[in-house]
Amino acid sequence: MDFTPKDPDFEARVRASFARQPMMETLGATMTDVRPGTVTIVSTIPPGTLQQQGSTHAGLAFSIGDSAAGYAASSLLPTGNEIVTSEMKIHLLAPGRGERLVATGRVIRPGRRLTIVEADVWSEIAGARTLIAKLMGTMVPVPLVEPTT
Amino acid sequence: MDFTPKDPDFEARVRASFARQPMMETLGATMTDVRPGTVTIVSTIPPGTLQQQGSTHAGLAFSIGDSAAGYAASSLLPTGNEIVTSEMKIHLLAPGRGERLVATGRVIRPGRRLTIVEADVWSEIAGARTLIAKLMGTMVPVPLVEPTT
Amino acid sequence: MDFTPKDPDFEARVRASFARQPMMETLGATMTDVRPGTVTIVSTIPPGTLQQQGSTHAGLAFSIGDSAAGYAASSLLPTGNEIVTSEMKIHLLAPGRGERLVATGRVIRPGRRLTIVEADVWSEIAGARTLIAKLMGTMVPVPLVEPTT
Amino acid sequence: MDFTPKDPDFEARVRASFARQPMMETLGATMTDVRPGTVTIVSTIPPGTLQQQGSTHAGLAFSIGDSAAGYAASSLLPTGNEIVTSEMKIHLLAPGRGERLVATGRVIRPGRRLTIVEADVWSEIAGARTLIAKLMGTMVPVPLVEPTT
Repeated sequence: MDFTPKDPDFEARVRASFARQPMMETLGATMTDVRPGTVTIVSTIPPGTLQQQGSTHAGLAFSIGDSAAGYAASSLLPTGNEIVTSEMKIHLLAPGRGERLVATGRVIRPGRRLTIVEADVWSEIAGARTLIAKLMGTMVPVPLVEPTT
Repeated sequence: MDFTPKDPDFEARVRASFARQPMMETLGATMTDVRPGTVTIVSTIPPGTLQQQGSTHAGLAFSIGDSAAGYAASSLLPTGNEIVTSEMKIHLLAPGRGERLVATGRVIRPGRRLTIVEADVWSEIAGARTLIAKLMGTMVPVPLVEPTT
Repeated sequence: MDFTPKDPDFEARVRASFARQPMMETLGATMTDVRPGTVTIVSTIPPGTLQQQGSTHAGLAFSIGDSAAGYAASSLLPTGNEIVTSEMKIHLLAPGRGERLVATGRVIRPGRRLTIVEADVWSEIAGARTLIAKLMGTMVPVPLVEPTT
Repeated sequence: MDFTPKDPDFEARVRASFARQPMMETLGATMTDVRPGTVTIVSTIPPGTLQQQGSTHAGLAFSIGDSAAGYAASSLLPTGNEIVTSEMKIHLLAPGRGERLVATGRVIRPGRRLTIVEADVWSEIAGARTLIAKLMGTMVPVPLVEPTT
């Protein structure tokens, strides 16, 4: 779906918020693509994100999928707002292994009180990719809390 | 609900698997209580698990809730098996703030092919606690993959 | 949890809304208990609600569980409001068979913009009951649309 | 995705099972398209499927979406099997109004122990259609129970 952003500076706002998330650094995550209603986050799969079988922990796919979906919702908000997750469901479809995980979040239905989102998470190795997770959930806009420096 | 474990050494097996999860160390998580069908995991909320508002990232509550629920399912398996998450839904009910997060996972219905689980996640500060998340999902037993040392 | 209703006539309001739902009559459903934040709906399992194996269709447990949860949320609203479902997850735990299904919905966390709810659905036969489904979801308050008759 | 059916008579098997579901007749539902991994079910929205605001009850979109997704999973099974729903999440995106609801279910990932599915539900009026619901869930194959008549 094509969306028209309400905030012309949505990309800078979204990237600034992402940069203030320590969890994303812990997960080796960077924000690559930011478009109205669609955001992509990539994780380098640091060793500290694995589970007992050597695959990525479900929490890694969840975290970057949830953040990608949340920032997709955030990209459509007026300035002065940000997003919190209300609920999210994830299906794990295949073990997460490889060089990196790529999560793309999309807005399904934007709204003033709540925004419905989804995300796909892929693992990539040697240029080939596998769909490892799908998420669908509910994001809620809240007034932006400025960093207090 | 009361469950009878099929593996008398379930606690040692569950704790050994947990100890091999690098993600849990990254999240400052330790396994406290292990009983048949019920497991508790506590996180000290390392600074690297926060989001942009200074609360815990949704991925922290998800990760420890998912692991607590998964090990609750694992505790009821015969020896030689472990658990992977098939799907999980989380509701975030309040911001995660405080000294630590405590996740308790429980089996709702055990099964040979799939086990239905739930988890509650609490934040604690100065002895008071707040329910910050509830999870419900599906775990699937798989043959144990031995660590290859 | 104990909740204090904002509308002293919540029970009459909730029962009047239920009575205007043709779907509930189709499903042989009546509203039994109505308390602040908790509502019970019972279905007599009409033959037209079965699936191909002779058990109740997943849609029956969903419909009465969703309605019980929605009216539980509605019971806590100020007058002039009602509830629509935003999202709902159901786990089917056992086949629905017997004389009737009983769904109890409860509010987990009330809110001005959205209310988090859950429901349990039981089948009953000869006085014994089996938990057949659990639901957890999100309800949204909307202004009451008066019947136009 | 393109799937190769394991049962050359999958369409006849799926349609025969659907015909034995009294709930589908109650909901004015017919099965239109049946392809490997994709099934469409249409409801004429009988008056007995509405809720108190005159829109379709959430249970109608759930029931036909769940059945479309379940039969999509069933279409890929070997002969002698059928499907039961383990869990399903539905997002309601818009009120269901119009001449009919159309639900298309699809397999996301088939499996021997469980199949992951999704469904979209549309309302149609005067040839225009609106997406009113999205579902994602887990189906479990079970041995076919033959009708005993």
